[in-house]
Amino acid sequence: MPVIPLNSANDSRLEPYRDVKDRDLTGRQGLFMAEGKVVLERLFASPLCETVSVLTTPARLEGLSVSDDVLVYLVEQAVMDQVAGFPIHRGYLALGRYAPPRTLGDILARAGRLRILALSAIANTDNMGGLMRNAAAFGVDAVVLDAACCDPLYRKAIRVSVGGALVVPHYRLNAGESLLDVLSTHNLIAYALSPTGDMVLDQVVPAERSAFLLGAEGPGLSCEILDAAISVQIPMHGGFDSLNVATTSGIVLYHLCR
Amino acid sequence: MPVIPLNSANDSRLEPYRDVKDRDLTGRQGLFMAEGKVVLERLFASPLCETVSVLTTPARLEGLSVSDDVLVYLVEQAVMDQVAGFPIHRGYLALGRYAPPRTLGDILARAGRLRILALSAIANTDNMGGLMRNAAAFGVDAVVLDAACCDPLYRKAIRVSVGGALVVPHYRLNAGESLLDVLSTHNLIAYALSPTGDMVLDQVVPAERSAFLLGAEGPGLSCEILDAAISVQIPMHGGFDSLNVATTSGIVLYHLCR
Repeated sequence: MPVIPLNSANDSRLEPYRDVKDRDLTGRQGLFMAEGKVVLERLFASPLCETVSVLTTPARLEGLSVSDDVLVYLVEQAVMDQVAGFPIHRGYLALGRYAPPRTLGDILARAGRLRILALSAIANTDNMGGLMRNAAAFGVDAVVLDAACCDPLYRKAIRVSVGGALVVPHYRLNAGESLLDVLSTHNLIAYALSPTGDMVLDQVVPAERSAFLLGAEGPGLSCEILDAAISVQIPMHGGFDSLNVATTSGIVLYHLCR
Repeated sequence: MPVIPLNSANDSRLEPYRDVKDRDLTGRQGLFMAEGKVVLERLFASPLCETVSVLTTPARLEGLSVSDDVLVYLVEQAVMDQVAGFPIHRGYLALGRYAPPRTLGDILARAGRLRILALSAIANTDNMGGLMRNAAAFGVDAVVLDAACCDPLYRKAIRVSVGGALVVPHYRLNAGESLLDVLSTHNLIAYALSPTGDMVLDQVVPAERSAFLLGAEGPGLSCEILDAAISVQIPMHGGFDSLNVATTSGIVLYHLCR
């Protein structure tokens, strides 16, 4: 790997790493910022992503296995913090590019068993991170997002996902495209989670080609989705009527995605 | 309910509501701060807690069912924000006192079926909130915390728990007291969750008196606990080796606490 020591926080090569939090708000148009050793290792290993460059300190470089074609910038911790705009306790940042080799159509057109996680209006990055973490842990084939979801490649979502967002392919629909239409076009049976679902989770024997739909906490999924899909509930105790959406995905995927 | 309009942020009766975030760091010695309508409703209904007073705005009062013996202070939103030290978007605060009617000994000495969640070194308030939310959703009888856990009654933990922290009794051990000793003294079978557990979750048929042990993400449970308990893993996919601890509790409790 080409290792380039840099001394000044003003070096133009550090531009992508500048004011990291401000850019989190707007996204990076296909690029993303990964942080921390475990997440960087998932980035390096991911067939869905390319690593554009890495930023770390001389002391931390030794602990990292970077492939030969990745550019590594080395700076002192103080310069790293100054460039990023906040203390990078994890000591590693990387700029990546999300470049999945296949389209959603390619994945859905595949014959045989499919397990899809379909998300509607998940706007909270912590929840998105938790959902992607569970999608990776239980091996879903792809995550489909409607246009109202936040980006799984926001830095915080990647961090909360422990890199899961970099290893499970995700595809965003355009505004106006319907999750249900996309799923039914490809012969996927849609199971929609809701506290008022008709079936309880234990009764569900998932179809060979299944999609599990989750909506934001509070509003939940739309009536249109709940009416058209097989609605499923997780029975709860003592008047509690909702779980965190990432926790819900963990329970559902543990059950139905194996 | 006695309703007392107050005009000044300096009124001494607002003292418990002052600089809420600073006090979050140190705790309130048996008192706690609840926020938001849903959480306040759980507080009012909880047999484990007393409501000392409520702080809200005239406009919001109408939406709240408060019992006749609770003191309600009414202020304008700007005064509320000034006193609390940050914007109270949820519009409701309440000061409560945690006062469970029974001790851990009373609960554990009960004959017959028991489902206990036992937590070691859970220091993250988000995770603690998620754990208490799931404990409530799946009806565990009590949560036992070792001395290294954070307080489930921190404001943020209560909020993340959606009030679950106010309805499931929890008991903290003293430094030096052992979770395993307390559980075995009361004839509870301990199941310890770990990515390297000997059994897989599906194989577990929980004993009539069961305790489920979870540790902090990263370090996990101590070797001492894993050796002495029945260690259990949740099988995962593609090299992922850990789930969020709150998500883990959701999967485990859904399975074993019904």
